[in-house]
Amino acid sequence: MDTLEKLMDTMGRLPGIGRRSSERIVLKLARHRALLRDLIAALQEMEGEIRLCRQCGGLTEKERDPCRLCTDPRRNGLHLCVVEEPSDIVQIEKSGAFHGRYHALLGKISPMRDEGVRNPAIQALLDRARNERIEEVVLALNTDVESDATAQYLRDQLAPLGVRVTRIAFGLPAGSGIGYSDPVTLQRAMEGRREM
Amino acid sequence: MDTLEKLMDTMGRLPGIGRRSSERIVLKLARHRALLRDLIAALQEMEGEIRLCRQCGGLTEKERDPCRLCTDPRRNGLHLCVVEEPSDIVQIEKSGAFHGRYHALLGKISPMRDEGVRNPAIQALLDRARNERIEEVVLALNTDVESDATAQYLRDQLAPLGVRVTRIAFGLPAGSGIGYSDPVTLQRAMEGRREM
Repeated sequence: MDTLEKLMDTMGRLPGIGRRSSERIVLKLARHRALLRDLIAALQEMEGEIRLCRQCGGLTEKERDPCRLCTDPRRNGLHLCVVEEPSDIVQIEKSGAFHGRYHALLGKISPMRDEGVRNPAIQALLDRARNERIEEVVLALNTDVESDATAQYLRDQLAPLGVRVTRIAFGLPAGSGIGYSDPVTLQRAMEGRREM
Repeated sequence: MDTLEKLMDTMGRLPGIGRRSSERIVLKLARHRALLRDLIAALQEMEGEIRLCRQCGGLTEKERDPCRLCTDPRRNGLHLCVVEEPSDIVQIEKSGAFHGRYHALLGKISPMRDEGVRNPAIQALLDRARNERIEEVVLALNTDVESDATAQYLRDQLAPLGVRVTRIAFGLPAGSGIGYSDPVTLQRAMEGRREM
């Protein structure tokens, strides 16, 4: 059945869905047509309603662009948090640890290719740093090689503009222990040790 | 964002998708619009193309009703395997352990309510037992109280028609051990012990 195969393949491209769960989902949908129709309708509504904010690149509704976070006057516009993906903004908001504004890069720089200049979201970030009154840019990037290259590139570009550039800490995750940590995490946690 | 919430709720009704994975999926879809459109298209194709076979209740394409399994002349029509859900047919076909035809009940009888008479798939099964030449009905039902009640009801209805009624074995699952089994499984495995 090509139709079911195609749907299983597409489902399998979603995060956290392997072959086995994709199959279970498709079989359930084939049997429960009301759920199938609800799902199609909800996806179509998202396709029609959800956009990336033209200012920060985060998720927003079609009618609210710039987004709620960009336009909320209670948020501190002096602090700008740079993330890779719009979903990272959702995660940081849940932590309640940041009260400034955001900027999503929608990708990162490959150290092999010199892509910073061509990434429009990075150019937009530099424009914001020049035109808005920003004191500190907090880099909340991931921890791989390309994220490190991106962090380095952004620091080199932003520092001459008189902006303080910080990066969120590396170390042991909450609820974890030494015995469960990989060597790189431990090395970085050790380097980042603080007086207590 | 009501749109995203609604989609997360709908996703969460799919098997194996909890709140956390539903959120990850929705955020990925919001960012990757080509994947979102592929998913909508594949779901719509399924809604248009996939039906339940009017003979066995299994999954089939709109143009192939009765389904491939019902019309395959190489399959043994004397043996009829009764399952609860169309997806169970897919699982049994994967095992390669059955070569007859199928009948999906699309539900089971509640022992509290006397639903056998009103379930059209059960009436269709009794009609098949009366009108087709069937020697053995294999009940491949689940192992809960309602499945047991359904099995009992079907045996009582089918036996007077001169049909042999069997039920697939209970016992230890493959790759499992005594130490991992619950008491009911062990009790049933003990009851089903065989000469070796």
